[in-house]
Amino acid sequence: MQPQSCGMTEFFNSAFLQCSACGANQIRSSDGLQCVCKDGYTVTDVGSPIVECAACTGTVSQDKRRCLKCTSGNVCTCTADQTQVDSLDTVSCVTCPSNSVVNLDSATCVQCQETFYAATGTCHCPTAQLMGGLCFKEPSITEVLGTVPHSFWFQTYLDAGYLACTAYNNLTACQLLTNMVILSFNVLDSRAYNLYNKALATSVYLPRLVYNNPLVPLGQTAPRGLSFQRNAKINFKIAKYDASGHFLGWQDVTGGTLQLCSDTQKKLDAAYLFGTSYSQSCSVQISELLKQFPEPVFYELFLQYSDSQGNESLWPVPVMSSPGSSQVQQRFFLVDGLTGRQDNLNSQPQYVTYASKLVLSVYQPISSPGNEPPFKLTVQYTTVNINGQPNSQTQVAFAVTYSMNQDSKRTNTFIALAVLGGLSIFLAMLETSSWSHRAGQQFINCTTIIKYLAFLTGNVANTLFLITIGTGIYWLVAFKGQHTAVDVALPSPGGSLETDFIIYLSLAFAFKALQLIHMLVVQMTISIFLIDWERPKNTKHHAGSSSSAPSVSAWRTFFVANEWNEIQTTRKLNPLLQLFAVLLILEVIGVINIAVRDLNLAVQPGADNYQAPWSPILRYGITASVWLAVGIAQILFFVVIYERLVEDKIRQFVDLCSMSNVSVFILLHQCYGFYIHGRSVHGHADVSMETMHSNLQKEKDNLCALRGLEPSSEIQTFDFLLTQKFRDQLDKIVRPLSKTTMNGRGGSQGLLDQKTKTYYTMNRFLSSFLEHVHEDMDYMVKDKLFLEKIMNYEFQQPFERSMFYNDPDGIVFSSVLYYGNELVLLLFDTLLFCIIDLGTQNIVLATILTYLVQQLLEMLRYYIARNNLTKKTLVDQCFLI
Amino acid sequence: MQPQSCGMTEFFNSAFLQCSACGANQIRSSDGLQCVCKDGYTVTDVGSPIVECAACTGTVSQDKRRCLKCTSGNVCTCTADQTQVDSLDTVSCVTCPSNSVVNLDSATCVQCQETFYAATGTCHCPTAQLMGGLCFKEPSITEVLGTVPHSFWFQTYLDAGYLACTAYNNLTACQLLTNMVILSFNVLDSRAYNLYNKALATSVYLPRLVYNNPLVPLGQTAPRGLSFQRNAKINFKIAKYDASGHFLGWQDVTGGTLQLCSDTQKKLDAAYLFGTSYSQSCSVQISELLKQFPEPVFYELFLQYSDSQGNESLWPVPVMSSPGSSQVQQRFFLVDGLTGRQDNLNSQPQYVTYASKLVLSVYQPISSPGNEPPFKLTVQYTTVNINGQPNSQTQVAFAVTYSMNQDSKRTNTFIALAVLGGLSIFLAMLETSSWSHRAGQQFINCTTIIKYLAFLTGNVANTLFLITIGTGIYWLVAFKGQHTAVDVALPSPGGSLETDFIIYLSLAFAFKALQLIHMLVVQMTISIFLIDWERPKNTKHHAGSSSSAPSVSAWRTFFVANEWNEIQTTRKLNPLLQLFAVLLILEVIGVINIAVRDLNLAVQPGADNYQAPWSPILRYGITASVWLAVGIAQILFFVVIYERLVEDKIRQFVDLCSMSNVSVFILLHQCYGFYIHGRSVHGHADVSMETMHSNLQKEKDNLCALRGLEPSSEIQTFDFLLTQKFRDQLDKIVRPLSKTTMNGRGGSQGLLDQKTKTYYTMNRFLSSFLEHVHEDMDYMVKDKLFLEKIMNYEFQQPFERSMFYNDPDGIVFSSVLYYGNELVLLLFDTLLFCIIDLGTQNIVLATILTYLVQQLLEMLRYYIARNNLTKKTLVDQCFLI
Repeated sequence: MQPQSCGMTEFFNSAFLQCSACGANQIRSSDGLQCVCKDGYTVTDVGSPIVECAACTGTVSQDKRRCLKCTSGNVCTCTADQTQVDSLDTVSCVTCPSNSVVNLDSATCVQCQETFYAATGTCHCPTAQLMGGLCFKEPSITEVLGTVPHSFWFQTYLDAGYLACTAYNNLTACQLLTNMVILSFNVLDSRAYNLYNKALATSVYLPRLVYNNPLVPLGQTAPRGLSFQRNAKINFKIAKYDASGHFLGWQDVTGGTLQLCSDTQKKLDAAYLFGTSYSQSCSVQISELLKQFPEPVFYELFLQYSDSQGNESLWPVPVMSSPGSSQVQQRFFLVDGLTGRQDNLNSQPQYVTYASKLVLSVYQPISSPGNEPPFKLTVQYTTVNINGQPNSQTQVAFAVTYSMNQDSKRTNTFIALAVLGGLSIFLAMLETSSWSHRAGQQFINCTTIIKYLAFLTGNVANTLFLITIGTGIYWLVAFKGQHTAVDVALPSPGGSLETDFIIYLSLAFAFKALQLIHMLVVQMTISIFLIDWERPKNTKHHAGSSSSAPSVSAWRTFFVANEWNEIQTTRKLNPLLQLFAVLLILEVIGVINIAVRDLNLAVQPGADNYQAPWSPILRYGITASVWLAVGIAQILFFVVIYERLVEDKIRQFVDLCSMSNVSVFILLHQCYGFYIHGRSVHGHADVSMETMHSNLQKEKDNLCALRGLEPSSEIQTFDFLLTQKFRDQLDKIVRPLSKTTMNGRGGSQGLLDQKTKTYYTMNRFLSSFLEHVHEDMDYMVKDKLFLEKIMNYEFQQPFERSMFYNDPDGIVFSSVLYYGNELVLLLFDTLLFCIIDLGTQNIVLATILTYLVQQLLEMLRYYIARNNLTKKTLVDQCFLI
Repeated sequence: MQPQSCGMTEFFNSAFLQCSACGANQIRSSDGLQCVCKDGYTVTDVGSPIVECAACTGTVSQDKRRCLKCTSGNVCTCTADQTQVDSLDTVSCVTCPSNSVVNLDSATCVQCQETFYAATGTCHCPTAQLMGGLCFKEPSITEVLGTVPHSFWFQTYLDAGYLACTAYNNLTACQLLTNMVILSFNVLDSRAYNLYNKALATSVYLPRLVYNNPLVPLGQTAPRGLSFQRNAKINFKIAKYDASGHFLGWQDVTGGTLQLCSDTQKKLDAAYLFGTSYSQSCSVQISELLKQFPEPVFYELFLQYSDSQGNESLWPVPVMSSPGSSQVQQRFFLVDGLTGRQDNLNSQPQYVTYASKLVLSVYQPISSPGNEPPFKLTVQYTTVNINGQPNSQTQVAFAVTYSMNQDSKRTNTFIALAVLGGLSIFLAMLETSSWSHRAGQQFINCTTIIKYLAFLTGNVANTLFLITIGTGIYWLVAFKGQHTAVDVALPSPGGSLETDFIIYLSLAFAFKALQLIHMLVVQMTISIFLIDWERPKNTKHHAGSSSSAPSVSAWRTFFVANEWNEIQTTRKLNPLLQLFAVLLILEVIGVINIAVRDLNLAVQPGADNYQAPWSPILRYGITASVWLAVGIAQILFFVVIYERLVEDKIRQFVDLCSMSNVSVFILLHQCYGFYIHGRSVHGHADVSMETMHSNLQKEKDNLCALRGLEPSSEIQTFDFLLTQKFRDQLDKIVRPLSKTTMNGRGGSQGLLDQKTKTYYTMNRFLSSFLEHVHEDMDYMVKDKLFLEKIMNYEFQQPFERSMFYNDPDGIVFSSVLYYGNELVLLLFDTLLFCIIDLGTQNIVLATILTYLVQQLLEMLRYYIARNNLTKKTLVDQCFLI
């Protein structure tokens, strides 16, 4: 099948892709594609693979076409130092002159190598003077030591290169010497480097090896006033040399020039779009690398730019041969399979050195880089021993990174943290003070400290949240908003700014979670009393018949308890709509794609474009602000439109209280709580459907008194601050119950009786209190001061009378529900969602997990609160459905 | 900067990348990298770019190193037919012999071209005989006409190629002629083709152009018994020729060999993994194509396989030059920039022809391909006029497609459709018959037909759903389950099978939506009566005091109505959990990735792997079965575990009825409906909390009678079939109400009175009916037969007595709720989700839209049903919260 696999008297017939027989006296040519005549035959070849051969009794001419006579006999037999010279009809053997030698196929005399003649005056060079194919007068190199790698290339050409460079001013030899210094980057006390240094003194053609003067900071030599627009192409040029030192020309750096991984042109080219952080890596076979670079190629990298006069100039980009190295060079290579060849230049290399990682670092601001060079290339070489296994895989990478000095940003964050942190501590004190008022605490004790810590937790969480979202939005605007003169780089991946950010974010979430738990615990342990105002219609008739309690139907209480149970986890926004809207915006519309480390704002970049790595700060900035924006939009929609036009569960509950003649008395703290006045304006609510309809009609027609607690007031909801005396009285009523519970429960029936008794006593006591019956435990209704509202703090202490504060909005009691704590929940959700998203880099998963956590919390909250409600109001769980 | 840009007396110093001055009497060499001596100077060059030059008064030798004397005077001036011959110290001019000419640089005599000598016997060929650089004895070609493209290549070499092929048996000339036929694929009556046909008769080296004998079907010549494992690499080999006809060797076909788009090696190689449908396209610059293929390369494609004896063999793959063409060739090219060169071979081409689309079609089963070839390459060429704009972009594509004869599958689907369709028609008849029983219809009328269509809709939807999901799962198993001997191909994209599938799916969704709407309309217009069993405790005392209605509190009724309202849209599964679980499985875990047209089962294929295109059938198969599986798992979990251990809203409602002493009487059709017996076992339910607690305790301790309608029965729920007489009676009671409504409403108070009156009458009538008071309208309670249950059909007509059927499960009435129609809802959701997913190819968007549609339907259902409840039970909306 292969041309070489045909027999010696066959040729490969490419018309039919098979072997065909040659003619007589013919054998296969070296490429196997046609036939040639045997020695001693002349050929006539008009193009057919089978030629015509004729036997020659004389000597065949060098072009094999003529049969000639020899001047000395029939057949010429030339000696080793003779060439066959064909003339018109004859052939003669001619001895070459002294300064020339016979060339390889004995066809002509060629003049001997110039250095041989220069060194010895003859065509013969004694082996002592012969080095690397050149001849030297003084082949010894004195005073230079150093290690030479075990490599045919170094052993043959290192000293020759030095000598040719210094003795003969051979430019390519000087380049060769320089390349050898680059190749022996990992050899300690390298002889190549020592020779280079010695040659520096004498040679005029020795290229610069080390970048600039090491005393001048790298950035100082860089051009000033460079400027790139968003996504402008950075024009790099490379000068290329082969291993022997020949200049191979200039080349523009595009996609695959320096990248060893293959990919689409568009993706490869994205590496040189200014502002795009680029990272690419893949695994390649060593043999593929060697196929791509059979001989090492040496590069020098230059930035092409217009200087202040508008002339195109080149600035050499410094190259570091490893991340930590101090020596800055100009030249580098990608793959070296040459040094590893040990016996001769055609053998397989024993080891291969390749640039396993190239990092082009861009230091911003590029226009005035200070002491850092604006561009810098770091080449990390790896040497692998291949031992005849050139098919082993290896990892290569190419990256472009952008960085800048971020110290001032870090300082700003610390200042903000300090200021807001101080404020938090102060606010927590205020809140604790308010709480201790309300809890009737006179002194600071352990509980106070715990409460202080709880409040502090919440405030610190808010502070940290503010700082993180501020950071996120700052970088979004400052980085992504750049159009012309791009001079801001994102914080480096894994740098101190990002680490700080992650710490702040984690702390914010942890503290917010603690705050949420505190809130839930407080909400799930409130005391609640349902006060039924209904009196039996015919008390007098039955005063004696039933025992003590008047027989008022409990169904209205059940109904109110049922509805109270249902509004426990009602929120100002719809959490599912929130999740789906955020998912839609971030994932489906694709806003999250803005969070990548480039200067594009495309939300649907397309699969064939390069996808830069994510920046956690940008990602957080986008997710958190989208979540907050959707949340706030939802709250506005629900509070302003939906609740007014469609359904408002909180105010529906207050209405229901009014209609059912049941008030709700909630104690949040020891002496503080909320009151929903639900006394029916019709006196009775336990009526037939008919009466209920007419009552409703009356109210609609404004024929009734107002529903408020005070006459001529519509205000039904209050928060209150009780006197210590009143609170003691309440405790006194409840005490027998807890005593019974403690005393081994004393039979369920007894407990139930006790409970019912307490329930009725409490009902009576609270209704009489609200009807101003107890003169020593009276209360007054007043408006809250504006400052009191803002600070959530009551300035006046209730010494003689309890205070009831009007709540014209009708939702003050919702602070014991989810509804009144929307901010805590919203921020918790935001942080939860963002943290999961940052951890998993997956919006969909974050959505699902956020949903699950929300559901779990809601179920916990619901069931525990339901138990609490059953315990506090004596309404059986089968009515709380 | 460029070596060529230095001055004539400067060289490019590659050590410092700048121009340096040459020495005296020197000028730049042609490559600009060193200096050479001017004419008339000898040179000494030991390697430095600046050489040493010495003036020569004699003649400079051909190697420029020696200054020699001419044998005829000091300086030799050779004429055009003479060469300069250097000997040891002298130079002479020698005239070349008659059969040789001076070569280009006048250095030596070379023998003249063989064909010149063969044709004319001299080194001179008359222009009439000279063609394409060869000389012919008879250069005229008779009897062959035909069009020749306006191309330097064709005009120079076409006839010469033909003549050399026939006259000199020149193999490359024969190849050249064949290549020209391929190049002129788009020329009508091409001279190249005519010459080729003429040459066929005489030439022995003319390659085959047309694949096989056109009378033998292509597949017949293909090897039998080929077999590929899943993802086995298909080994293709190509033979390459250049335009002049030289054989360039064999090459294995890997990633980029035939693909003009660049990409990562792994992705490119995926094209040849057996079973992977591959499609790649990109836009490239014409100039890039020309850079890649400066001269056209011609390919012949072969499949490498082991024949039955285990020998490696090659089978030529047929090539079609355009999709519709009947001629099957063997040779093709990728880019031709040669034909378009018009003035000479170095000019820019005026037009470029390239293979804009290569499609490798695989026809399965590969082991016995029948008349279709197992592999076939279709090349679509495009010619663009570039007119000096070689930077214009163009689109190129490469694809691998798999197909097989799917007729039998189509037939099977039709059979299934016919059988199931017939069954649907029959089932719909049965359902209509059942409905007409229940609706008390005696004759077939318009409503019956509408009902029949509604039922038929539902059944056809189910049929189509079964067929689509069956198809999806069949292909998942049959295609994706292949390991060895892969012989099943997916239905072709856009083929008849896929089109049928999309039509069935769309119809299934449309019909299911109609069925859902029908169900919702029926549910939202049911009649419901709440029967309050409570009698005033002291009726006798107040008989005269209040007007007519006894004053029983309506709050229990309110409570029951409220709870009934709340369970309207309760489902057997949690629709949100469903959405999120499906999203998790499909998108986050990545199960959807199985739906691509390859044989991998990886759920997270990784960004560096090739992503084959989606198959809609596989995608539907996966999404629908995941949705159904999750749905069924949820239903099992909720019905078996959650409802028993945690909360069962339906049975809680029945409990509540019992506790509140309120029965629910629901009329679904004219004479058919459901009854929930809620009569309290304690006689009274409108009691104080105390009594309620003790009642609950009593029931817990089993001290009460059973709750059932019949004595010693626990069954509280029934479906019933009323007699026509009873139904008439009901209508009579309700009639005054509708009359009042019609008569201009007659004042809201009047209407309300009327309503209340009707309400009490109905309450009394229904309670007395249930208490067996009316002898002429009695009822009997019985168990449903098993077959009746299965068929949802009552065999017995209620002529004398109404029938109450026991429902031991307690959920029969849920068929007027979402709860009892889970199947319809689940299938609707499945189809909705899958349809959106197929339309948008986006699981996340499908999830969001499904959620929105579900919410919208639920809200509609909820609000309309609430209005209906208010209207039917007189419970004000403010209690339905």
